Amino acid sequence: MKIRDQHYRTIWREQQTVCIIDQTLLPFAFQVVRIETYVEMCHAIRTMQVRGAPLIGAAAAYGLVLGIQAVADDDVLHAVADALIATRPTAVNLRWAIQRMLAQLLVVPQAQRAILAWEVAQSIADEDVTQNHAIGQYGKALIAHAVTVNPAQVVNILTHCNAGWLATVDGGTALAPVYAAFDAGLHIHVWVDETRPRNQGASLTAWELAQHGVPHTVIADNAGGYLMQNGQVDMVIVGADRVTRQGDVCNKIGTYLKALAAADNQIPFYAAVPTPTIDWQMVRGADIEIEMRDADEVAYMQGQGIDGRLQRVRVIPKESQALNPAFDVTPAKWVTGIITELGIFSPADLLTLEAKS
Amino acid sequence: MKIRDQHYRTIWREQQTVCIIDQTLLPFAFQVVRIETYVEMCHAIRTMQVRGAPLIGAAAAYGLVLGIQAVADDDVLHAVADALIATRPTAVNLRWAIQRMLAQLLVVPQAQRAILAWEVAQSIADEDVTQNHAIGQYGKALIAHAVTVNPAQVVNILTHCNAGWLATVDGGTALAPVYAAFDAGLHIHVWVDETRPRNQGASLTAWELAQHGVPHTVIADNAGGYLMQNGQVDMVIVGADRVTRQGDVCNKIGTYLKALAAADNQIPFYAAVPTPTIDWQMVRGADIEIEMRDADEVAYMQGQGIDGRLQRVRVIPKESQALNPAFDVTPAKWVTGIITELGIFSPADLLTLEAKS
Repeated sequence: MKIRDQHYRTIWREQQTVCIIDQTLLPFAFQVVRIETYVEMCHAIRTMQVRGAPLIGAAAAYGLVLGIQAVADDDVLHAVADALIATRPTAVNLRWAIQRMLAQLLVVPQAQRAILAWEVAQSIADEDVTQNHAIGQYGKALIAHAVTVNPAQVVNILTHCNAGWLATVDGGTALAPVYAAFDAGLHIHVWVDETRPRNQGASLTAWELAQHGVPHTVIADNAGGYLMQNGQVDMVIVGADRVTRQGDVCNKIGTYLKALAAADNQIPFYAAVPTPTIDWQMVRGADIEIEMRDADEVAYMQGQGIDGRLQRVRVIPKESQALNPAFDVTPAKWVTGIITELGIFSPADLLTLEAKS
Repeated sequence: MKIRDQHYRTIWREQQTVCIIDQTLLPFAFQVVRIETYVEMCHAIRTMQVRGAPLIGAAAAYGLVLGIQAVADDDVLHAVADALIATRPTAVNLRWAIQRMLAQLLVVPQAQRAILAWEVAQSIADEDVTQNHAIGQYGKALIAHAVTVNPAQVVNILTHCNAGWLATVDGGTALAPVYAAFDAGLHIHVWVDETRPRNQGASLTAWELAQHGVPHTVIADNAGGYLMQNGQVDMVIVGADRVTRQGDVCNKIGTYLKALAAADNQIPFYAAVPTPTIDWQMVRGADIEIEMRDADEVAYMQGQGIDGRLQRVRVIPKESQALNPAFDVTPAKWVTGIITELGIFSPADLLTLEAKS
């Protein structure tokens, strides 16, 4: 991904430390944070300086690396792994990345673990980039064949939250098809759901689309249904924090509402995910533990004040409470397809993917 | 309605002027504005210092009064009426109130019009209060007979935007049943949709429920579907800016998404409106002109800064555009019933109401 014409990943090694982009400051400030310990990485994941299922997986892997550089016995490995897994309960990639690290590290002598850990984490990051590129190619074909209803034949894609390059190591999941289509010269436009309460759409998706020059418009989360009713959406593509064995899609709160509206208006609804996001152990989405985040994320809103600095304003009365569920589950019956690095699968066909992935 | 233990309407006459509460400053500041001319009233309606379909009707009626105090010939009446109707295209009450004023004023000599206008406007305001009281009684019975799924048998009601006493002259429409049930000692709790982009839920509904002591929780607009999936919503009650002959409900943007989720989870979905909100001339909701408001309402968010003052922060990148449709239409097939001052009607039965209203 390009930021002011320089190539970046969202996470990268620098000597014995790991660098990340502090996503809580975007779109108004771009700041790189150097992470030196696994405790700092836990903090970065919990406070959502890094977020997005695939990026959380890579961040957790790098966090484990940092946590075992001094001592790498089995107890330390498990303790660091547990601390990282506890930071965000919903994303399956985090658990997947940690388990992969453990599986490869526990079978080698302690003395080799510190160096091997860097290699495995680097592989996890590299594979994410490769997978996202493949997702982009499969999704691009969908966009190229979309039947548009508007006279200008611009394909209008609605997305929720941020599943772009900022949610991954690079390339994006839901936005990988968007970038691939745009780079291939297809005429597209993206409706960007603001995505309250944390505004990842308005702040992150809009920012990265703008950096890449992709035409887009930010809308309130409430507006997507109206646009679908009025022929202004040709397809919905979202990411996911977890997809279950039967094809239920757990993603940012509010995704379910857009899936219902898409179904009511005969608009295809896709989730784009690398296969590590599919939880083959979990059948029903209703069984996924949904993270409840701090109510202050609803009670306050962050933005740029007239002096140019980031400010937080309170948006509910001081007498009122708020509740902040972070994710919801879209039942498979409302999902047209899952776009993966191995192809596009309807929920009913998802099991054919299990053997391949 | 009580504000700090003093009784208020949202609009009232004081000598030859009209007073309103500036709702753009709530919930953090309570300020009464004195309106002296119809131009000032047009401004108050357009900038949403007064908003809510029934209140807009009363405000327009009072605006017409102010506009014809000096000269009250037919040309002036029509010119003032047209200016007021043009302020907000979607709300049918506004047009209804103006037409009623014209019908009663045009048939009397010019010399009598200035005084008669005050009387008709006062009647419109008084009738709104009476109608809302009746809506409250019908709705209270629904709440009393609701089958709750939670062990505490608290009836959980989800509402969108503000259709409370701040949206009416007094008493509220969607919230009239809530207040009636609460005052009767029923155990209720209200989920308050924030209602981006203007946050009428978080700022107005939460504020008036808090003033009255009704238990409530503010949620992001995205969260309602999740709560419905998880048995935490027993019914949805919203207001409406217009209901069509076939029972389509035009209300604040995002209402349609909640109606879809209610239907998907077998939760009753009601619109509570006085009969002047029903547009018997309009059959299909799809034919209603939807107001597009300033994109800055999406690009910025207003709230209370740490210094206690109202501040506006930008929440989208400076390179990004926004779109701001203000209403959507919920097709009748997703509407369980319309709660009116004359009873509760399914969309199919709505025509039996035409003769009565």
